[in-house]
Amino acid sequence: MLPRAVMEQAQAEFLDWHGTGISIMEMSHRSPEFQSIIDQSIADLRVLLNINSDYEILFLQGGATSQFATVPLNLAGPNGHACYLHTGHWSGLALADAQRHCAVRVAASSEATRFSTIPPRADWRVDAGASYFYYTANETIGGVEFHFIPEVSGPPLVSDMTSNFLSRPLDVSRFGIVFAGAQKNFGPAGLVLVIMRKDLVGRAGPTVPRLYDYATYAGHNSLYNTPATFSWYLAALTFAWIRQQGGVEAMEANAIRRSERLYHAIDDSGFYSNPVPASFRSRMNVPFTLADPALDPAFRRAAREAGLEALAGHRSVGGMRASLYNGMPDAGVAALIDFMQEFARRHG
Amino acid sequence: MLPRAVMEQAQAEFLDWHGTGISIMEMSHRSPEFQSIIDQSIADLRVLLNINSDYEILFLQGGATSQFATVPLNLAGPNGHACYLHTGHWSGLALADAQRHCAVRVAASSEATRFSTIPPRADWRVDAGASYFYYTANETIGGVEFHFIPEVSGPPLVSDMTSNFLSRPLDVSRFGIVFAGAQKNFGPAGLVLVIMRKDLVGRAGPTVPRLYDYATYAGHNSLYNTPATFSWYLAALTFAWIRQQGGVEAMEANAIRRSERLYHAIDDSGFYSNPVPASFRSRMNVPFTLADPALDPAFRRAAREAGLEALAGHRSVGGMRASLYNGMPDAGVAALIDFMQEFARRHG
Repeated sequence: MLPRAVMEQAQAEFLDWHGTGISIMEMSHRSPEFQSIIDQSIADLRVLLNINSDYEILFLQGGATSQFATVPLNLAGPNGHACYLHTGHWSGLALADAQRHCAVRVAASSEATRFSTIPPRADWRVDAGASYFYYTANETIGGVEFHFIPEVSGPPLVSDMTSNFLSRPLDVSRFGIVFAGAQKNFGPAGLVLVIMRKDLVGRAGPTVPRLYDYATYAGHNSLYNTPATFSWYLAALTFAWIRQQGGVEAMEANAIRRSERLYHAIDDSGFYSNPVPASFRSRMNVPFTLADPALDPAFRRAAREAGLEALAGHRSVGGMRASLYNGMPDAGVAALIDFMQEFARRHG
Repeated sequence: MLPRAVMEQAQAEFLDWHGTGISIMEMSHRSPEFQSIIDQSIADLRVLLNINSDYEILFLQGGATSQFATVPLNLAGPNGHACYLHTGHWSGLALADAQRHCAVRVAASSEATRFSTIPPRADWRVDAGASYFYYTANETIGGVEFHFIPEVSGPPLVSDMTSNFLSRPLDVSRFGIVFAGAQKNFGPAGLVLVIMRKDLVGRAGPTVPRLYDYATYAGHNSLYNTPATFSWYLAALTFAWIRQQGGVEAMEANAIRRSERLYHAIDDSGFYSNPVPASFRSRMNVPFTLADPALDPAFRRAAREAGLEALAGHRSVGGMRASLYNGMPDAGVAALIDFMQEFARRHG
């Protein structure tokens, strides 16, 4: 869900960007006009997250999933090894893909709690000689989010922040690589942003596909081949919108307010429940179950009729899930809570 | 350049697709609504090019450049070898990327003519034992297009048709793989379409990145990970528009009419020239030079002032280049010719 103001601006300039008479989609990615969008997007992101010049900012294609292979191919290689924290669906997919490209050691797993927790730091086996240490900052399906940055001395820290990027301040200097697919918090599907320490660029071997080698982009201002220009433009509009709203501090305040209202409504209901301990609860994705799972289809049907879309849980786990990304207005959460309370009254 | 009618429709339904109240960009790629777009796009493409059920139709990310690595990784592998026809910039990039992943033999090259021709068939060294035979159907920079399908007995034929896809009828059954980036003739940058014989799926080794293995998509209806949904939607609108216009036969008639007018104007001018023999001239891209290269900057400046964009030749060769993709109306060609004649009168 993108902010309404961003969508309206994109619609208004869809056929004619800034009086050029052509669409962003029809513009050369090497034109001065598109370069101005690139420059502004990178400048805005550097301000939003206070990113210093030790870090490259790259805009790639392929979604976050492409990074599941790109990270091991660049940082480890066939003779290297990496440590992964397994906290749910997305970290599980990432480590399975990494196993195609390097040796993988699982530092800790929360599978025993059905991925409703983060394993205690004391139980992690961190290998100081690993090429990198990987974790997923927010697991959308389990609804588990890191509210801290892991302390791991030695290997560079790599994090998939697709689903909570720009929803809170972030100390980028603690990371080797942060990546985020655009489609949750800052753009349409098909774009992935990579923020990486410059000294980690250039480590890929000669058999890595050229578009999977970070050096291909770092050496060409992300323009080695034609980028997803329209997606980049929407990301640029979203970064500008976040700055106008008060930056990631404002996004965080919004995320806390929205998610706390929903968690309170669930916890107070006696009808709905969420299994995640408070300290790990995600501000972005709130999975919940009904007291009687037999009511699930009726709930989904009624929600759809009430205009509340995309409330079904992931096909791998069932149940329900509400997503509260940056573009979600407070009114959307209020409408959801009203609906849930009414449904519980009728069926409780 | 996309057809104006497609762009206007996309703008009109940008915030609210078919009364759903949400944008295509905000819609789940697994929703019934988006599935209807997928199904229609594939059905339309099968009709447009008469593609039978022996062929998969895949929608991937990464642009055509991603296929420069994906093809050798899937069809050849480190112990295989492939034959390439080198007819210009794009086939040159493709074969350089293939060399990272398999042995490459150049069947023939037109470098001696500065890539203004296609080498005579009799001079090609086709290796019947090669994993595939590769050529670029239209070279945008040299302005050279294949107006025939190469006869190569033995290896599957693979072609990059990014820049002339859907501009003419095509006998897909002659090919192992046809691929095309969307941004020239059917959509925005970031989407690449792959039409491949089903028996060629599943040949990638276990160390190929998962998103570079065709089996990942063929097994998941191109939905293994989130596809570039908005780009796919625009491609679907364009396929429907081409059908309404009379199919690829109508696109071909348009392309012949547009390009012949421009080539005639160049040949008759005594001021402009194009070096490509008539039988190889591209209907999509018309490079040309001025009698006096010192006039190039004045020509580009005046063209821009006249609202004629993107006429500069590729940075690697200089000169001028007009692109006449499917979305170009006849009036655009007429305006270009008028401008060129007036410029020649003033400076000839």
